[in-house]
Amino acid sequence: MNKEDIVKKPVGVLDHGYVELIDYMGSDTMITDAARVSYKNAKTKSQDGFLIDYLMRNEHTSPFEQVVFTFRLKMPIFVARQWVRHRTARMNEVSGRYSVLDADFYMPDAEDINYQSESNKQGRGKVMSEEDAAKVRSVISKCYDVLRDGYEELLESGLSKEIARIVLPLSVYTEFYWQMDLHNLFHFLKLRLHPHAQLEIRKYAEVILGFVREICPMATESFVNHNLKSIRISQKEIGIVRDGMDFSAVKADERDLKILKEKLGVS
Amino acid sequence: MNKEDIVKKPVGVLDHGYVELIDYMGSDTMITDAARVSYKNAKTKSQDGFLIDYLMRNEHTSPFEQVVFTFRLKMPIFVARQWVRHRTARMNEVSGRYSVLDADFYMPDAEDINYQSESNKQGRGKVMSEEDAAKVRSVISKCYDVLRDGYEELLESGLSKEIARIVLPLSVYTEFYWQMDLHNLFHFLKLRLHPHAQLEIRKYAEVILGFVREICPMATESFVNHNLKSIRISQKEIGIVRDGMDFSAVKADERDLKILKEKLGVS
Amino acid sequence: MNKEDIVKKPVGVLDHGYVELIDYMGSDTMITDAARVSYKNAKTKSQDGFLIDYLMRNEHTSPFEQVVFTFRLKMPIFVARQWVRHRTARMNEVSGRYSVLDADFYMPDAEDINYQSESNKQGRGKVMSEEDAAKVRSVISKCYDVLRDGYEELLESGLSKEIARIVLPLSVYTEFYWQMDLHNLFHFLKLRLHPHAQLEIRKYAEVILGFVREICPMATESFVNHNLKSIRISQKEIGIVRDGMDFSAVKADERDLKILKEKLGVS
Amino acid sequence: MNKEDIVKKPVGVLDHGYVELIDYMGSDTMITDAARVSYKNAKTKSQDGFLIDYLMRNEHTSPFEQVVFTFRLKMPIFVARQWVRHRTARMNEVSGRYSVLDADFYMPDAEDINYQSESNKQGRGKVMSEEDAAKVRSVISKCYDVLRDGYEELLESGLSKEIARIVLPLSVYTEFYWQMDLHNLFHFLKLRLHPHAQLEIRKYAEVILGFVREICPMATESFVNHNLKSIRISQKEIGIVRDGMDFSAVKADERDLKILKEKLGVS
Repeated sequence: MNKEDIVKKPVGVLDHGYVELIDYMGSDTMITDAARVSYKNAKTKSQDGFLIDYLMRNEHTSPFEQVVFTFRLKMPIFVARQWVRHRTARMNEVSGRYSVLDADFYMPDAEDINYQSESNKQGRGKVMSEEDAAKVRSVISKCYDVLRDGYEELLESGLSKEIARIVLPLSVYTEFYWQMDLHNLFHFLKLRLHPHAQLEIRKYAEVILGFVREICPMATESFVNHNLKSIRISQKEIGIVRDGMDFSAVKADERDLKILKEKLGVS
Repeated sequence: MNKEDIVKKPVGVLDHGYVELIDYMGSDTMITDAARVSYKNAKTKSQDGFLIDYLMRNEHTSPFEQVVFTFRLKMPIFVARQWVRHRTARMNEVSGRYSVLDADFYMPDAEDINYQSESNKQGRGKVMSEEDAAKVRSVISKCYDVLRDGYEELLESGLSKEIARIVLPLSVYTEFYWQMDLHNLFHFLKLRLHPHAQLEIRKYAEVILGFVREICPMATESFVNHNLKSIRISQKEIGIVRDGMDFSAVKADERDLKILKEKLGVS
Repeated sequence: MNKEDIVKKPVGVLDHGYVELIDYMGSDTMITDAARVSYKNAKTKSQDGFLIDYLMRNEHTSPFEQVVFTFRLKMPIFVARQWVRHRTARMNEVSGRYSVLDADFYMPDAEDINYQSESNKQGRGKVMSEEDAAKVRSVISKCYDVLRDGYEELLESGLSKEIARIVLPLSVYTEFYWQMDLHNLFHFLKLRLHPHAQLEIRKYAEVILGFVREICPMATESFVNHNLKSIRISQKEIGIVRDGMDFSAVKADERDLKILKEKLGVS
Repeated sequence: MNKEDIVKKPVGVLDHGYVELIDYMGSDTMITDAARVSYKNAKTKSQDGFLIDYLMRNEHTSPFEQVVFTFRLKMPIFVARQWVRHRTARMNEVSGRYSVLDADFYMPDAEDINYQSESNKQGRGKVMSEEDAAKVRSVISKCYDVLRDGYEELLESGLSKEIARIVLPLSVYTEFYWQMDLHNLFHFLKLRLHPHAQLEIRKYAEVILGFVREICPMATESFVNHNLKSIRISQKEIGIVRDGMDFSAVKADERDLKILKEKLGVS
């Protein structure tokens, strides 16, 4: 893959946002090169894919830190506030103190408007009826019109920008450069692709995952299997699985079975 | 000082905010104990105040990391967004996905409402005329009324909380636990007490400084002198000062002069 | 538990080392208080133990960061080099540039002397025969005698301490203050209590775990079950377990079964 | 400059060490691009050199984090132990548990062998007499011979590598991948190029500085002037300089004088 084919090509997300890969350093090979430093002089030879899988499975995370990505992102502030909680990133954000912000506010599509979930206190339940969704969009729209006018009126009165912006809604878009290494990016993706993460941040995370898969296909495949779609089984649960598991009933690759049995402590 | 006299006593900031010290670990003595680990067996004896001053002056920062503070803070989101850029903190924030947020929005007092600065692109200029400030407050107030009603209407329609909150303004208050060590807190204070920092965050930073001074008076005094109110003189500027400085014209403590001359490379 | 009963009481490790708790901040209650900030106004009531278990199981790690420990440690440098790879700590170490180091070198007991493992390239295999172990100890002892004399001779020649120390062995003891929050400490313990971690560092980690259990018993119990002794099952392995698992064959608590089935995606 | 001209060309340091640039991301332009994100829509136009100088002078550090370097380094362990104290790096080091280490031990050249400084407790004083230096080298050499033989003998006895290595001296060479962003690298360089830093680490830092200067010439020049060779003047010292300074006596660029006067608070 050529770098020019992938960088500086923004991919749209939500109604006004995007994810753009600005630059990156490293690849699957950088990961294995870094890992092999540890084994210098040791007679270990293994193929890259196998080594990456081994590192991922055993949580030897440092070689993944050697790959770095820089993105330019545009997203609503309520998404950006979740985004910046990941402290291992380096970022530069547009400042509402310096700049008049564009009055781009996020308006969810009708199919992304849901009732409050009843089972999950922090989540979305069923999609709203057409009628209810239309009403929601109309209330939001009315708020946005008032805020757009209010922000403009405040600026026209000569008010300093850093004060005027305080009336803008949490759905106003912001932009920033954001750099992260692959190990921390995988951790970010695990949290932000989780079904309980807010829909809007998941949409950004999916685009990020796409970029990462292009640049580090082996590491990404291994991440999806051993981490993103994995589960953690507690000590107590290991006991339950050991009791209930009939290994003779399953068809699986010998090597896969061997590793699983080792994990479960079954001989 | 007794811990009970200072913890869990919130100090009000802005119209609905506060700073509350939840707990802390360490003191001036912890700093010097940690520093003296380095000199084990070395025949160095110096008083605590002198040692702290030496550490601060020479940017031996690690002993200051041994003191830790936990605050509970309530502040508008546009302030909180600056706050969380300090990545060395540990925080837990109220979630607008779980909770219906209080409709507390920050309304600046008339004396805190300024025209855009003409010299400083990111700052406040002169205080607004009474008339203009009143108009500003009325525009803001109108926005807030619409948003308060809008948020309520959205919740009543059964919309999930995580969507409803997106119409709330950047001035809505949030709350969080926030823990930081003293070295990083001093760095935070240097940036957030700077005259170019936004007025609202400076008000919080001043209250934090007050708490820190109570618990580590020696370190705080040294920080103010050697860091907060210090300046950095470039290599080029050192040359200018060396050329223009007449040491015979100044009255100062011998020891202070000696240290200054060493810094400037003047014998 | 009274703080005085546990702080400043060094526990010996290896032949010349120790772990001493200097101070700490927080407890199980601090964790739940911090977690409950997120749910403000939400009608969630649950007991502390249940909440801690929920946080641990779902990897909601930030509340555990609110508890902080400061230790004073003495350990051989080859152990300390593994120790400092954990970058989230704050430390102050004795300096061999300032101080003449004590000529305390670690000598392993006969029962801790093993042949190279054949299956594990980085590990210890069988315990050495008495005869071989005695030979090893005698070779090591001879080296130490030469180095002890060498270091002393170099210092006596007037050589600067920072050069003289370069002949000291990796087994020389060093001392440092070390502070870490509970979330990162659990991660540290997971890696350093792992059977593949070097025996010597595991001995220190076990003492640390003991201190943590005294101060945060609920969090520690939950950590042991859901993290330390847990395993991670990949997407592929989930399929195997689903195929081979007979839930009707196991006896377990209803609630435990329900959670496990949810994890496995079994209805 | 072409990347191929500078990467993977190791530069020797000390008797067996080197610094090799493996890869990097960014340049002076990346710094200004990242900085300009903040000023979006603001009518600020300035040349890159001026902007970089402004960022450096005002400690707007985040744009410098967008440039990243990966090095492969070989250095004695007593140097590496200082190196790894910089916690913002990502590293992968050769493991003495996996690998038989090369018996490369650092032997200082005669001109780098100094008496203990009398004024500076942690430093080198005068260079040793030829005779004394020769004696020092002979003592070190004798130690090394014994250790080399000892390590070999221990390995031959079948002892596990992780135990055998504990007799190796602090001067044994280690190798690692090491990645750091430019802001943190400048901080590293400031500390490790300081005249009080140990000679051996300064030699590595100088080579690093050379690489950085090739890739980011403007940022490096600005760093040297405003940071590396700058001094910090305390509040008290500002008073002294204000009292003693005769600005009419100095010849300097108008703009430079204006900035200096602003710093000093002189009108």
